[in-house]
Amino acid sequence: MASWFRRRRPRVEAPTLTPRDTAAAALRVDLADLAPAPDLFLGHCAALHLTFVEQLTTAMSNAPRVADKDALARVTGVVLTRYLALVAEIERLQLDKSDIMAPHLDGVEEFERRTQGNSWQEQVASAHVTIGFLTDFWIRLAAGLPAELRDRAVAALGNGDLDGPVHRVLEREIAANPPLASRLALWCRRLVGDTMLQARSALVLHDDPARDESKIEPVFTELVAEHTRRMDRLGLTA
Amino acid sequence: MASWFRRRRPRVEAPTLTPRDTAAAALRVDLADLAPAPDLFLGHCAALHLTFVEQLTTAMSNAPRVADKDALARVTGVVLTRYLALVAEIERLQLDKSDIMAPHLDGVEEFERRTQGNSWQEQVASAHVTIGFLTDFWIRLAAGLPAELRDRAVAALGNGDLDGPVHRVLEREIAANPPLASRLALWCRRLVGDTMLQARSALVLHDDPARDESKIEPVFTELVAEHTRRMDRLGLTA
Repeated sequence: MASWFRRRRPRVEAPTLTPRDTAAAALRVDLADLAPAPDLFLGHCAALHLTFVEQLTTAMSNAPRVADKDALARVTGVVLTRYLALVAEIERLQLDKSDIMAPHLDGVEEFERRTQGNSWQEQVASAHVTIGFLTDFWIRLAAGLPAELRDRAVAALGNGDLDGPVHRVLEREIAANPPLASRLALWCRRLVGDTMLQARSALVLHDDPARDESKIEPVFTELVAEHTRRMDRLGLTA
Repeated sequence: MASWFRRRRPRVEAPTLTPRDTAAAALRVDLADLAPAPDLFLGHCAALHLTFVEQLTTAMSNAPRVADKDALARVTGVVLTRYLALVAEIERLQLDKSDIMAPHLDGVEEFERRTQGNSWQEQVASAHVTIGFLTDFWIRLAAGLPAELRDRAVAALGNGDLDGPVHRVLEREIAANPPLASRLALWCRRLVGDTMLQARSALVLHDDPARDESKIEPVFTELVAEHTRRMDRLGLTA
């Protein structure tokens, strides 16, 4: 069953390349060889999105002010929309969502426990770092999917704005309480290792570790650079 | 400021009554005299919806199976949609959502703590009982709002289906584990008192307690009857 989904579809070359196609082609160079089959891609990514909902609503619950609760409720809605779009792809492939998400639950829940902060600010920072990094990663990983599914998966993961509102919650909080910055910077640095391991766990590695690493390294370098930019925008040292 | 919203708007009589208008008119007889001003109605109801999101995602997080997590994620989406529609009404009235929700946070969070179950099944049952009862109540309470706002508030609270999916989660769980029924029946009975107190806390009482009670009692009798039907459908003694 799964092997059917590993079958490569012939690519139809478009007569011209739009900027988006060019970007997609560049990404395909990176992770296509290590990308999981559609069932693994979608099952893992949808299961992760359930933990993102939990992470954001825990932070929402612990946030003392209405403005922050409201912002976190709205981004929970964004993550839910992405989750529903991923499940819609699972169903379009006539796969059983329970069957394909269940094998990933333990892994993503353990990841969620390891990255759950103690204070609500740490919890928001965790959401910012882990959802940001893993969404960037999964969009790159989509390069290995059949073309149509790839486009729909990338669109699913691009639904709504999450980065902006979460950034603004943290920005307000740091401005109101500047000593928080150094604690959050340490906390966010602490998160990167677990987040990278979670991303790696989705890759299909081969018998040639040196070759695999040569594919993985440039992508992770890019993802860490994006993470660093995310921290810089908050005035935090990555 | 608040007094502005207490001002009664003249009602425009429609030439004919649709069944919906008749129902609304019947309800207006019940709670209109005890209904809070729009700012209190919307602030309290929106704050409650944030705790509904927390309640449902806690249950989702603790539910072991994907099918239940998925169902609870979807009803979280329903509650979020209702929340956003309520906040849209707050903003339409040019009120500050933080100012009008903040005074209700402590009360609704204390209510959430008191009605939070220990097991995930109790947590789902809590959501079923408390969200079901309080949504029915707030729809009746809307009878006291100016006509246009009333219609929009009732529409906001009617977005999506919450009762059906939550019922089915509990139904499956009780079928798989019949001894659970008596524990859940006790737990749900335990919830009704706190839920009725939460509802009462939204009423504006007057100097004539006997008159107030004569208005409240028939409404609460109806709401408890609806609660009993909800329990009956699950085979639980209310």
